[in-house]
Amino acid sequence: MDSKKRGFYIGRFQPFHLGHLKVIGEIAKQVDELVIGIGSAQLSHTPDNPFTAGERIMMISRSLKGLDLYYYVIPISDIYRNALWVAHVRSMTPPFSTVYSNNPLVSRLFREAGYEVAYSPMYNRHEYSGTEIRRRILAGEAWETLVPEAVVEVIREIKGVERLKAVSVKGDIEDVIDGVP
Amino acid sequence: MDSKKRGFYIGRFQPFHLGHLKVIGEIAKQVDELVIGIGSAQLSHTPDNPFTAGERIMMISRSLKGLDLYYYVIPISDIYRNALWVAHVRSMTPPFSTVYSNNPLVSRLFREAGYEVAYSPMYNRHEYSGTEIRRRILAGEAWETLVPEAVVEVIREIKGVERLKAVSVKGDIEDVIDGVP
Amino acid sequence: MDSKKRGFYIGRFQPFHLGHLKVIGEIAKQVDELVIGIGSAQLSHTPDNPFTAGERIMMISRSLKGLDLYYYVIPISDIYRNALWVAHVRSMTPPFSTVYSNNPLVSRLFREAGYEVAYSPMYNRHEYSGTEIRRRILAGEAWETLVPEAVVEVIREIKGVERLKAVSVKGDIEDVIDGVP
Amino acid sequence: MDSKKRGFYIGRFQPFHLGHLKVIGEIAKQVDELVIGIGSAQLSHTPDNPFTAGERIMMISRSLKGLDLYYYVIPISDIYRNALWVAHVRSMTPPFSTVYSNNPLVSRLFREAGYEVAYSPMYNRHEYSGTEIRRRILAGEAWETLVPEAVVEVIREIKGVERLKAVSVKGDIEDVIDGVP
Amino acid sequence: MDSKKRGFYIGRFQPFHLGHLKVIGEIAKQVDELVIGIGSAQLSHTPDNPFTAGERIMMISRSLKGLDLYYYVIPISDIYRNALWVAHVRSMTPPFSTVYSNNPLVSRLFREAGYEVAYSPMYNRHEYSGTEIRRRILAGEAWETLVPEAVVEVIREIKGVERLKAVSVKGDIEDVIDGVP
Amino acid sequence: MDSKKRGFYIGRFQPFHLGHLKVIGEIAKQVDELVIGIGSAQLSHTPDNPFTAGERIMMISRSLKGLDLYYYVIPISDIYRNALWVAHVRSMTPPFSTVYSNNPLVSRLFREAGYEVAYSPMYNRHEYSGTEIRRRILAGEAWETLVPEAVVEVIREIKGVERLKAVSVKGDIEDVIDGVP
Repeated sequence: MDSKKRGFYIGRFQPFHLGHLKVIGEIAKQVDELVIGIGSAQLSHTPDNPFTAGERIMMISRSLKGLDLYYYVIPISDIYRNALWVAHVRSMTPPFSTVYSNNPLVSRLFREAGYEVAYSPMYNRHEYSGTEIRRRILAGEAWETLVPEAVVEVIREIKGVERLKAVSVKGDIEDVIDGVP
Repeated sequence: MDSKKRGFYIGRFQPFHLGHLKVIGEIAKQVDELVIGIGSAQLSHTPDNPFTAGERIMMISRSLKGLDLYYYVIPISDIYRNALWVAHVRSMTPPFSTVYSNNPLVSRLFREAGYEVAYSPMYNRHEYSGTEIRRRILAGEAWETLVPEAVVEVIREIKGVERLKAVSVKGDIEDVIDGVP
Repeated sequence: MDSKKRGFYIGRFQPFHLGHLKVIGEIAKQVDELVIGIGSAQLSHTPDNPFTAGERIMMISRSLKGLDLYYYVIPISDIYRNALWVAHVRSMTPPFSTVYSNNPLVSRLFREAGYEVAYSPMYNRHEYSGTEIRRRILAGEAWETLVPEAVVEVIREIKGVERLKAVSVKGDIEDVIDGVP
Repeated sequence: MDSKKRGFYIGRFQPFHLGHLKVIGEIAKQVDELVIGIGSAQLSHTPDNPFTAGERIMMISRSLKGLDLYYYVIPISDIYRNALWVAHVRSMTPPFSTVYSNNPLVSRLFREAGYEVAYSPMYNRHEYSGTEIRRRILAGEAWETLVPEAVVEVIREIKGVERLKAVSVKGDIEDVIDGVP
Repeated sequence: MDSKKRGFYIGRFQPFHLGHLKVIGEIAKQVDELVIGIGSAQLSHTPDNPFTAGERIMMISRSLKGLDLYYYVIPISDIYRNALWVAHVRSMTPPFSTVYSNNPLVSRLFREAGYEVAYSPMYNRHEYSGTEIRRRILAGEAWETLVPEAVVEVIREIKGVERLKAVSVKGDIEDVIDGVP
Repeated sequence: MDSKKRGFYIGRFQPFHLGHLKVIGEIAKQVDELVIGIGSAQLSHTPDNPFTAGERIMMISRSLKGLDLYYYVIPISDIYRNALWVAHVRSMTPPFSTVYSNNPLVSRLFREAGYEVAYSPMYNRHEYSGTEIRRRILAGEAWETLVPEAVVEVIREIKGVERLKAVSVKGDIEDVIDGVP
């Protein structure tokens, strides 16, 4: 293909946080261009996946403004067939040579397909974690320091805190109408 | 649209019970017509979803005979994309203006789409619960008083007790053939 | 249909083991031909379903070489609609009259469709179990004595032990990139 | 099942017309209850399938008000697997014993599944035809006499004429943006 | 992988005919084992695809009895994503090194994936053609000489001639019920 | 939402050509940011849709380098449900207020959803047409002047001319193996 060195980095970004941003900053030193895949793009409005792909694109694009990196942000919907997943990703993205991932399944699937997989650098993973940030939002604890300022803005604009709380409610209430949909 | 006030009420109705019936009776006082959606219509023969959509239509239609209400009963299959769910429901139903639901996700999705969502009235939710009724059926306890007489009939006709027990069996046996399908 | 007595036996075969082999040996005495369905054919590269349908076909075909039985091995992908599952199986297989299964759901679905369901003979089910074999592989314990020699070979050829371990890793690491796909 | 004689009649109803109405009137004399399936329920906004399932339900329900018949109107989405279609219909509908259809494929599929299929009575099929009615709407010719008054109303309420014309436009224009979606 | 030379040959086999049989006979001389894929496995009961995957498996298995070749017959359902098709085939089949195909798309997809593609030998393609055989069946012309004797038997057993004629009927009749499903 | 004026423009871009580029140049004067949707993103390797979504992203991104416009390029896979299409697009994209489209269906769907739809400016549509460009490539006529230089490069890198010719071959050959997949 072309002579550019292009990397691939994928996450669910629920939400995009400072850990992601720092990883991308490190990868930026090693590649000419970066393809950022938004995993489980079709999911939204659940406790683990509150934000749509479009909202996550907003978070990432605004957070990366100013970064000296040519990047693509591409939603990758789940296909529920691991053996086809790499072909699926390839069909939706510009060609890349290196995959940056610490996720065991992602690493394995790309390695079986012959790709070079580099461990992505990591930071304070106990705080910089989507799970932790969603927990703090629900608990009413401070979470804004764990994400880029642009992400705070996007979540405010889409009323994301209100949405996450609404879709996370549980309890006896559901029994009456049998928990739909 | 037309001048009728039409409401929307959705449940999985596994099975339809007296709690549902009472809620519908209350809603009937507030609307001209009611659209009743059968959620997770594609599911059946599981411990949580033993009955087909067609069987649930039977339960509802027979139970509502005699009620002074013009209603529609419409199966709504899951699409596993929350962001598209309201559009999916709308495409399958006559137009409605008010949604009756206590389910947090249903409420949130319709509210984000601009619908009025009314809390549906509730009754003894510990007994009038699909989960409780299925538990009693499996345990051999009395459950018939929690559902309309018509539902007892339908479950008898389709051998629903036998089916629920059959699909709820667990244990080592499954290991031998690795639990299919 | 034709005059052959044909049986149907389905499993996920993750992996194919000596319990399966013995069951097939017993069924072989009762039928002219056997249709072997590979359940959840579309799954692979997960802790519970590490092997592709193609790899499972290899395991079965090699293990049955030498057995005096005319058989078919057919991948059956999940359709997530129990009420359609028997029709799905029928459309993908030669016609059969008897189903051999201890799985409660499989038995129930075929019985509701009017099929004869025979309990398949069983052997030491605590050891001859896919769950147990996958556990031993992960724990580094001896598992090779629980499967046919041909299965040991196939798993070695496809680096199956390495794959199962890779896709079974869990932990904090996933938080950083939010566990995709 | 229950002792009611229930029939099944399916069409795409794009739109529901007087031919359909007369057929239903005839069937009404032969059954206790009628299950009306709305085929290709997922389609809308195309030249051949302009109306949503919900809109078609409206057409049918309003047109049948006053008819002395207990009926169910149920959307049936395509599954693109003919061998599973009868099981799909069955899972979504109350049980029925007789199928009324002149459609060769529908007849064949139900016959292979062991159902009794009765030819439905027919009327002036050159005029009472969805194809003809959609052609007249597009051509600006009189079509209102071919459908029940209630259908004229529904199509007016949903601006159906405008929609059908909009989605039927063809020509060079599409080339510029390459005809999406 | 293993040391066997394995080939891959795919067709829709609607029905399996003498052209297919001769091609397989030729390929048999060049490989140790042959993987036969049944394309568009999910289709049946249409004018172009009258037979189910299971029926096609019967045709092939019976026709190849006596041939000195170890082969696998595997249904391959369409996934409607060309860029994923090779990965899909690979996941459902034992590993193979050579693809035998004259189909331009099949050849191209496997070549882009790095496979060796051999032109399959051909015979009188005007007669040995599924299209021609289906045409003859519909026209009441002699077709039995174009297929193996076993295929004539299978088609008789499943009443395939009657089915093909039934699903191929066209005309004004469809207008009345608007051509479902 | 945010205060940016954002537009939406969608095409299949098979391939991206100078007509598209000029339209985008015009839209650029009217919006702060532009969301470019790649329609039918899941299709590739067909005569009408030869290029993958990833390849089309490459064409667009390289062609727009130098243009003073902040834009997003987002693959939009078909969902085959017109009534859900706008919700699908919305879930995958940053929010936008104006749709630029001459396509009648796209216009209609967005208008029914309450969006402002602007006619996009047009240029010599007989030449600047994906259909015409694909025809010229197949016929061996000059096509390079109809697309941006960057698109010529991308098509060369991916051997697009060779691919389009390979997947466009027709004829008797297909009969032998019955035209798969």
